[in-house]
Amino acid sequence: MATKKLSIIMFSGDFDKLVAAFALASGSAAVNYEVNLFFTFWGLNAIKNKKGRKFTGKGLLARTFGFLMGGLNNLPLSRLNFAGASPKLMTHLMRKRNVATLGELIEASKALKVNFYACEMSMHILGLTKDDFVPEIKEVLGVPGFLKYAEDGETLFI
Amino acid sequence: MATKKLSIIMFSGDFDKLVAAFALASGSAAVNYEVNLFFTFWGLNAIKNKKGRKFTGKGLLARTFGFLMGGLNNLPLSRLNFAGASPKLMTHLMRKRNVATLGELIEASKALKVNFYACEMSMHILGLTKDDFVPEIKEVLGVPGFLKYAEDGETLFI
Amino acid sequence: MATKKLSIIMFSGDFDKLVAAFALASGSAAVNYEVNLFFTFWGLNAIKNKKGRKFTGKGLLARTFGFLMGGLNNLPLSRLNFAGASPKLMTHLMRKRNVATLGELIEASKALKVNFYACEMSMHILGLTKDDFVPEIKEVLGVPGFLKYAEDGETLFI
Repeated sequence: MATKKLSIIMFSGDFDKLVAAFALASGSAAVNYEVNLFFTFWGLNAIKNKKGRKFTGKGLLARTFGFLMGGLNNLPLSRLNFAGASPKLMTHLMRKRNVATLGELIEASKALKVNFYACEMSMHILGLTKDDFVPEIKEVLGVPGFLKYAEDGETLFI
Repeated sequence: MATKKLSIIMFSGDFDKLVAAFALASGSAAVNYEVNLFFTFWGLNAIKNKKGRKFTGKGLLARTFGFLMGGLNNLPLSRLNFAGASPKLMTHLMRKRNVATLGELIEASKALKVNFYACEMSMHILGLTKDDFVPEIKEVLGVPGFLKYAEDGETLFI
Repeated sequence: MATKKLSIIMFSGDFDKLVAAFALASGSAAVNYEVNLFFTFWGLNAIKNKKGRKFTGKGLLARTFGFLMGGLNNLPLSRLNFAGASPKLMTHLMRKRNVATLGELIEASKALKVNFYACEMSMHILGLTKDDFVPEIKEVLGVPGFLKYAEDGETLFI
């Protein structure tokens, strides 16, 4: 029997959607699914390392764009954008209720051998290279490369 | 031949996305698909009963969070957030054009035996229990439980 | 062996999500996938022709709604809504980095025989007809019609 497989195209950089994605990823890996995460666009924020380049550029727009690409400690909530205060509220609730936080869900996903891939096209657009990301990124892929890993499984766009 | 199957992870609480999800759910069930809806995070709003607890807490943030978790009569549109006026405009258009409203699509989904499940983790985070939901919720599930119902079908994240 | 298949329910009208969708569509078609795009709600903006009717109506809400349904040259970014300036910044970055722009990705999708379908229900709600769309729209479909094309492949909701 073929291994069961879940693949997620992680497009969003919203805090709450990343929580959902990593909960799905770690929960599926825990029951022996092969799990492939393909980070693209805003989702690349989730896998930046500490030295990962910020987006830089002149003008208000470019600076705002850079703010949105600030990495894992700078994620808005999809529904409430109070300058980062909302993810704090949600993290507070998660701790209080004894639910794993986003950081813990990411670590669990790594420990359970979830595969991390980064999208070549969006890295080009944003001027990022593999050095900007955590070492768990196995490969930089285009669409055809991703399709090969995802085929014959469930695929979600988040 | 195996039954065809559609499963939807209903994450969003946006009015327009719920319309899309319940149109897909009822339309698929009408042609004999097995349909599984897994409500999580903001999507839990769609299945609260009239007595369903509101999120409570102190401070402006907590109150805003509570506002966003206010249930089915308090859903924003993903694109226009005019304090609930937009879903009214859209519902008006749907009535005028003779298209089923969100409430009618939900009732049709129930009548066509669409399966409703609620996400254990987000219920914990938000302090909700099964008693807060409509009686059609068959089970409270974690990720592995959901995967079992969803496997070998189409799965969407909305 | 059955042809591999990717189907996308194109719900969002956000510029960045349309870039992601058409990159997936053209990239998949390039490696011989059958690709089906089902445009619905805000996503209908991507396929309006130049004469495509604008949404009209009285009052501020209706006018704003009309603005959001203004077609391909009027798409917001999912994360930055500076009155259309952000898609300009992103298009600028895409040109600078030599990545195909949204218009080029759409043309590539057409050239690679990606199938375009429009959603009957959302056309009814918005008062649109097939004449409002580009000639590449093969069919106007309801949910059951779409399911038939999508079955036994990967399906994404974007």
